[in-house]
Amino acid sequence: MPSERRYVITLTCPDTTGIVARIAGFLAGAGGWIVEAGYHSDVDSGWFFTRQVVRADSLPFEVDELRRRFAEVAAELGGQATWTVTDTGVPKRAVLLVSKEMHCLHDLLGRVAAGELPVKLEAVIGNHDALEGVVRAHGVEFHHVPFPAGPDGKAAAFAEMGQMVDKYQPDAVVLARFMQILPPWLCERWAGRALNIHHSFLPSFVGARPYHQAHARGVKLIGATCHYVTADLDAGPIVEQDVIRVDHGDTVADMVRRGRDIERLVLARGLRWHLEDRVLVHGNKTVVFR
Amino acid sequence: MPSERRYVITLTCPDTTGIVARIAGFLAGAGGWIVEAGYHSDVDSGWFFTRQVVRADSLPFEVDELRRRFAEVAAELGGQATWTVTDTGVPKRAVLLVSKEMHCLHDLLGRVAAGELPVKLEAVIGNHDALEGVVRAHGVEFHHVPFPAGPDGKAAAFAEMGQMVDKYQPDAVVLARFMQILPPWLCERWAGRALNIHHSFLPSFVGARPYHQAHARGVKLIGATCHYVTADLDAGPIVEQDVIRVDHGDTVADMVRRGRDIERLVLARGLRWHLEDRVLVHGNKTVVFR
Amino acid sequence: MPSERRYVITLTCPDTTGIVARIAGFLAGAGGWIVEAGYHSDVDSGWFFTRQVVRADSLPFEVDELRRRFAEVAAELGGQATWTVTDTGVPKRAVLLVSKEMHCLHDLLGRVAAGELPVKLEAVIGNHDALEGVVRAHGVEFHHVPFPAGPDGKAAAFAEMGQMVDKYQPDAVVLARFMQILPPWLCERWAGRALNIHHSFLPSFVGARPYHQAHARGVKLIGATCHYVTADLDAGPIVEQDVIRVDHGDTVADMVRRGRDIERLVLARGLRWHLEDRVLVHGNKTVVFR
Amino acid sequence: MPSERRYVITLTCPDTTGIVARIAGFLAGAGGWIVEAGYHSDVDSGWFFTRQVVRADSLPFEVDELRRRFAEVAAELGGQATWTVTDTGVPKRAVLLVSKEMHCLHDLLGRVAAGELPVKLEAVIGNHDALEGVVRAHGVEFHHVPFPAGPDGKAAAFAEMGQMVDKYQPDAVVLARFMQILPPWLCERWAGRALNIHHSFLPSFVGARPYHQAHARGVKLIGATCHYVTADLDAGPIVEQDVIRVDHGDTVADMVRRGRDIERLVLARGLRWHLEDRVLVHGNKTVVFR
Repeated sequence: MPSERRYVITLTCPDTTGIVARIAGFLAGAGGWIVEAGYHSDVDSGWFFTRQVVRADSLPFEVDELRRRFAEVAAELGGQATWTVTDTGVPKRAVLLVSKEMHCLHDLLGRVAAGELPVKLEAVIGNHDALEGVVRAHGVEFHHVPFPAGPDGKAAAFAEMGQMVDKYQPDAVVLARFMQILPPWLCERWAGRALNIHHSFLPSFVGARPYHQAHARGVKLIGATCHYVTADLDAGPIVEQDVIRVDHGDTVADMVRRGRDIERLVLARGLRWHLEDRVLVHGNKTVVFR
Repeated sequence: MPSERRYVITLTCPDTTGIVARIAGFLAGAGGWIVEAGYHSDVDSGWFFTRQVVRADSLPFEVDELRRRFAEVAAELGGQATWTVTDTGVPKRAVLLVSKEMHCLHDLLGRVAAGELPVKLEAVIGNHDALEGVVRAHGVEFHHVPFPAGPDGKAAAFAEMGQMVDKYQPDAVVLARFMQILPPWLCERWAGRALNIHHSFLPSFVGARPYHQAHARGVKLIGATCHYVTADLDAGPIVEQDVIRVDHGDTVADMVRRGRDIERLVLARGLRWHLEDRVLVHGNKTVVFR
Repeated sequence: MPSERRYVITLTCPDTTGIVARIAGFLAGAGGWIVEAGYHSDVDSGWFFTRQVVRADSLPFEVDELRRRFAEVAAELGGQATWTVTDTGVPKRAVLLVSKEMHCLHDLLGRVAAGELPVKLEAVIGNHDALEGVVRAHGVEFHHVPFPAGPDGKAAAFAEMGQMVDKYQPDAVVLARFMQILPPWLCERWAGRALNIHHSFLPSFVGARPYHQAHARGVKLIGATCHYVTADLDAGPIVEQDVIRVDHGDTVADMVRRGRDIERLVLARGLRWHLEDRVLVHGNKTVVFR
Repeated sequence: MPSERRYVITLTCPDTTGIVARIAGFLAGAGGWIVEAGYHSDVDSGWFFTRQVVRADSLPFEVDELRRRFAEVAAELGGQATWTVTDTGVPKRAVLLVSKEMHCLHDLLGRVAAGELPVKLEAVIGNHDALEGVVRAHGVEFHHVPFPAGPDGKAAAFAEMGQMVDKYQPDAVVLARFMQILPPWLCERWAGRALNIHHSFLPSFVGARPYHQAHARGVKLIGATCHYVTADLDAGPIVEQDVIRVDHGDTVADMVRRGRDIERLVLARGLRWHLEDRVLVHGNKTVVFR
């Protein structure tokens, strides 16, 4: 990870000639040293996407001034332009939602401890308390929000959980094999911030027990998908996917065990890219500047 | 490829204690030198599958006698047992069905020329004649069977094509991006012998224009599937699958081009395994002894 | 993982006709239900390898009697035959050696906690104490054996560590990014039990700082190798390898971070296969019945 | 492949602030519509690399004028800057060198026929004539230059081959499993244009019979490497690499057969990127804008 501080700029706007020149000119005019730059012109939609990383010490002003000035540049690109400017010196905040499945949680805790993810892990919230011990051993807060059976109980639990999460103003809400379907109002509130890991190669095997579905169909690869949560189950914008080979000798239990390796990796990669502002959502698709 | 002659035995039967011992004992009793052996006990279905490869020169009799004797062994394993005994000294026969897409055809012709596939390529049949030249340059027969528009024309064309194919008594009928849906009676007649390559990672993106579907969904990997043809479109037993990474920069045209690399490989692997009697079909799934 | 108890038999011996029949006949005669069977005839060396898994409840005797009887079978196969019979009801024991690098340790602790590895983790021994906290949080013993500078200090430390490890009679001694080179007498003592993870695709980039070497050479994939430790540095029998794609944009620091994902996976797979008696060492190579 | 004409600009120069702005400003000033843009700042070497693709019809002048004007821009970036401007409307030219191994040749001929590679295949030159038939069937010239035994014979043959190749002024000289080591003067003459496919994952297994070396070492993956030819055997800048899994059951012959799939793909990808001006060589490494 870079130790020096950087500013990360992202921009999404309708494509037209001269955008790159406008942004590059603006940054060069301020003395900005660009260390990473990604561009994408989507010929189908006619939209333009970019992500630029500038060394903070190359600019003669702070991030707020950069935001103020970049807002002017973006304004020239039309009313549909959206943009972000973030400062790698200010760690992103994340909250994890978990149930009883521990492999993604363990993996993320280990990565945070090893300094692999640029994030402050604010809290873990579980609908069971089975994972409280390991979370606290990592010095992270754990909150237990039981999910009573029945729709009323769930609604109350989600209300409590929603308040709890929002208190941290997280940049990422990670459903680390949370196993509960978020209600539409939470999907809406956390739009573009809530990441789920689904244990299949979407769009195959939506919904419950995807490994059972995969086993029944006799596929030769199983996969996992990290996507933004939307009100449509398992249908949100895909951030990352990967697969692993299986064969006739793999039982459902083998697939469950082997699939965990892919779930861990895919969620960790998707979360990293999200935290590093590498993922730009447009419609139901993503541009990922890796 | 092995130059020495071998006999390949496959057996599918309900599982019970002692099957391996019975087969191994039979082969050892005849002096058979087993050079490859694969076993699979399916705990879910309670069925047993095996593939054994024996050096022909280690047995004191010919393949017909091996068949006669193995039939007795199989008979002891109950009326549901199915088995095959083939002789690698007798090349398998294949017929290819093609349209205008040339990449899988070129690839298979190249592999046959290089001696990579244990097969005699009897003929290529196309509903267009665009690929006749390259086929003949490889010394392979080409037949043009035009597919007139309208259901009657198609039915007549399939009848002609069916007769043409059956004349060769092929061990494999390969739909190398044939683009036409076989009528149920041909699916039935060629059951277990007709291999198709579908340009998606099934069960995602069944049917027409799978790359367009993949592009619209924003998946991060595209794939291909080699499967046996059944009357259910793209739903037959899967033999092999693979995927390749794509990103937001890939247009549908890029996906089409890049997907060809996976289609070529997946079809070539699936066909090789089929020809080497490595694929045992059971219900809608396959056991593949790689 | 299978919940029911199983016996795992492995055998290595010079190849000859009838071995499979002899073993299968022996097991069938005792009523043994074989649930997994792998065979390998190495045509180059003329050796034979097998691994058989039998349901414990299908045999009318205990593991000791199975060992006694199998010893007679093996004896018939000649004096060079080596074999093992293990009982999955008796967990294997492992000791981990670590330094300051935490990612493989975290990963293995997480897998043990999740029940993914059939092992009792007896202890972790570190030449630094940085990782003591997380180890104890998982309820595992941690021993700190400092490695003083200079050859005498190291020799004394290795002597202490050797005694400590041997006290546990471990089936696996795992160098989880231990960063110290074992002295020949420890390589000898733990032959076939000590597993190392090297952060390159061996035989490329032996020795120190392999990611720096990979970066300097400009390779397009980086890898990791799990191998048995021998007195020849990074030259022991390879159990498992894998790679991940890199490009010109990856600095050495990026490679270090991204390589960890492969190190974790490769070590976890290699260790799993070792613990499940899937790895048979012959000369400087391995047969891995996956 | 894009049907509309494009200009492809590449630039390599010492890094400094404002390069992107200078180039983007220049293109925007001329009305250029950038459809692809790749940038790389190498922090280790302090060099900057870019590749820009502009729609030809967006500029009010032809490629020669673009070259003239871009030369001025590049001149401002200092004397070490190197750059290219090419026109996708003018197909690149390639010559293939072959021996008896046919799989890469077949693959490339098939890709050219299918329109997958933006190239005019000018000629194939073989030191054997075994592949003449298939080459001519594709409508491509074939020249047979026998390589007599002994150094004098080889030197004369290389002289003849060198003249023959140079006559075509090829943008790419592809050693498609040519099996002969180019003399230093040809490496020099074709520097940055001669692509070789080596059948190992370099730097492992340099030189002769890499699959034999891989088999002897017991690696679990085999690979192939596409690299620019230099006077140092198998040590030139790497363009692309890939690997495929093998196991203990694979003989050297199996590795040879299976490795071909990787050789085909890696060479085809490397050649495509070279032809599309995606590969910038710097020292002994490459920047590949995929």
